Amino acid sequence: MAHFADRLAEAVHRCGNPLCVGLDPRWESLPAEIRSKFGPTLGGVAQAYEEFCLRVLDIVAPIASVVKPQSAFFESCGMAGMMTLTRVLSKARRLGLITILDAKRGDIASTATAYADAAFDGTKIGDNVLPVWNADALTVNPYLGRDAIEPFLLSARKSNRGLFVLVRTSNPGAGLFQDLVCDGKPLHQHVGAAVAWWTRENVGVCGYGDVGAVVGATNAAELGRLRTLLPDVWFLVPGYGAQGGKAEDVAGAFNADGLGAIVNSSRGVTFPFQPDDEDWEDAIEKAAKSAAGELAAVMMR
Amino acid sequence: MAHFADRLAEAVHRCGNPLCVGLDPRWESLPAEIRSKFGPTLGGVAQAYEEFCLRVLDIVAPIASVVKPQSAFFESCGMAGMMTLTRVLSKARRLGLITILDAKRGDIASTATAYADAAFDGTKIGDNVLPVWNADALTVNPYLGRDAIEPFLLSARKSNRGLFVLVRTSNPGAGLFQDLVCDGKPLHQHVGAAVAWWTRENVGVCGYGDVGAVVGATNAAELGRLRTLLPDVWFLVPGYGAQGGKAEDVAGAFNADGLGAIVNSSRGVTFPFQPDDEDWEDAIEKAAKSAAGELAAVMMR
Repeated sequence: MAHFADRLAEAVHRCGNPLCVGLDPRWESLPAEIRSKFGPTLGGVAQAYEEFCLRVLDIVAPIASVVKPQSAFFESCGMAGMMTLTRVLSKARRLGLITILDAKRGDIASTATAYADAAFDGTKIGDNVLPVWNADALTVNPYLGRDAIEPFLLSARKSNRGLFVLVRTSNPGAGLFQDLVCDGKPLHQHVGAAVAWWTRENVGVCGYGDVGAVVGATNAAELGRLRTLLPDVWFLVPGYGAQGGKAEDVAGAFNADGLGAIVNSSRGVTFPFQPDDEDWEDAIEKAAKSAAGELAAVMMR
Repeated sequence: MAHFADRLAEAVHRCGNPLCVGLDPRWESLPAEIRSKFGPTLGGVAQAYEEFCLRVLDIVAPIASVVKPQSAFFESCGMAGMMTLTRVLSKARRLGLITILDAKRGDIASTATAYADAAFDGTKIGDNVLPVWNADALTVNPYLGRDAIEPFLLSARKSNRGLFVLVRTSNPGAGLFQDLVCDGKPLHQHVGAAVAWWTRENVGVCGYGDVGAVVGATNAAELGRLRTLLPDVWFLVPGYGAQGGKAEDVAGAFNADGLGAIVNSSRGVTFPFQPDDEDWEDAIEKAAKSAAGELAAVMMR
């Protein structure tokens, strides 16, 4: 496998847009057609999530190049949900999509290694490496500091995977700690500076490194400032679409080369219908094409 | 179920010590007797973890009152690991132990709710609530801010569960962000102040609230300072034992009433043997009694 940043650049060039489709299945939003097939047990819900997500993958694979399953919704079905997550990631890989496991993990030392090995190459047992999630990238939380990020990095670099570190998130209450000013600049810029330092340890031929930053779309000025401060860092930008961010709000996330950011839409692309709508697959295709088109237009400005 | 803080106080009083036993199973450290029964597949490893953890629970239940499974090691076995985690939590409950799921989750809005509902009362599907982990408490990461903590709180309070928010962790690189000085005090004190504010919304008859703080044992001065600043907050103190913290280092974590802190030991209690030792169960019993005794002596000073 090529360097993670280069695979991301190639994928964006190939599709001509930076859309990342978030897979956040919710029982109450699923098409009635799917819900009616499965009973309201954890196993039934997990099967319904699986059918829905696999059909979404078929629809979006010709349009977008990156997908981001949100681990929480699969975990909320316990063991059966983990089987579903395995199958969703596996199908995404077969379709040639880049997969970002959105689990926002953060822990230290051997615990961080356990999370990272499971997310990437596989869990090491004796001399064997046993694949678990086999994702291309993982979101991680920086609060625990240096020795919480480094085990994830070590694991990712063994097989050319990537990390996206939370820097400035898109939720209304994100500023409580992320915007506290320390030594003349907000905390999230300190985290950003650490991300830039880590990413420069391993830069691909495209000029970007393998440690990205999660930067929300909900504050265009902040997004632009971070773009200037962190020129060689890939951004994963949530908050576009259902969370309120518009395509013009994310324009500042891109560098002059049109690269540097992938923009996530979850509900906006995967739930643009009411559960009783029979043409829900057409609605998803239309929403994905519309988001891809909007983002393609702003990425090259 | 009684208020989480009162259950914790009752449990510490009943056992006479504040020991929390961390369950961090590692294949290479397991007794050879157990490893030899299971093949090196994810399912085999998960079964070995299960046998080991269930036997540890039987040994420590008469000595300690709190256990803390580390989610990463179970997740690293994929689906089979989640089945093991379910059974370990279930047996701990049957033995009357208080369970803290150490997953350090952090996310926002409906994603946070999905994590929290799974950890506590259960996943809501239509009119049904389907139990998943059913733990008494969950560790959470504060970096995402106010609206990342509040969904966890809402979910916990529906059934008298608790949270432990990462405040100052025990790892060597923790200070990279946690010790940055903002408005005259380190970031972790800002997080601590927010924890104190949240916990005061729901205080039990013992005088402590349902939102605790994770504060490492590796810096005794910092621990004492946080104890003074946050008198009504339960501390979960990692770093004692194998990580280098001694019983006298954690003395400052307790209030004058002998309450206010539970102290975790994982490897120190559960792996005080070599894989080939046949009397590994005796070694665990001895290590648990020794840790419980050491901590009982410092909690009432």
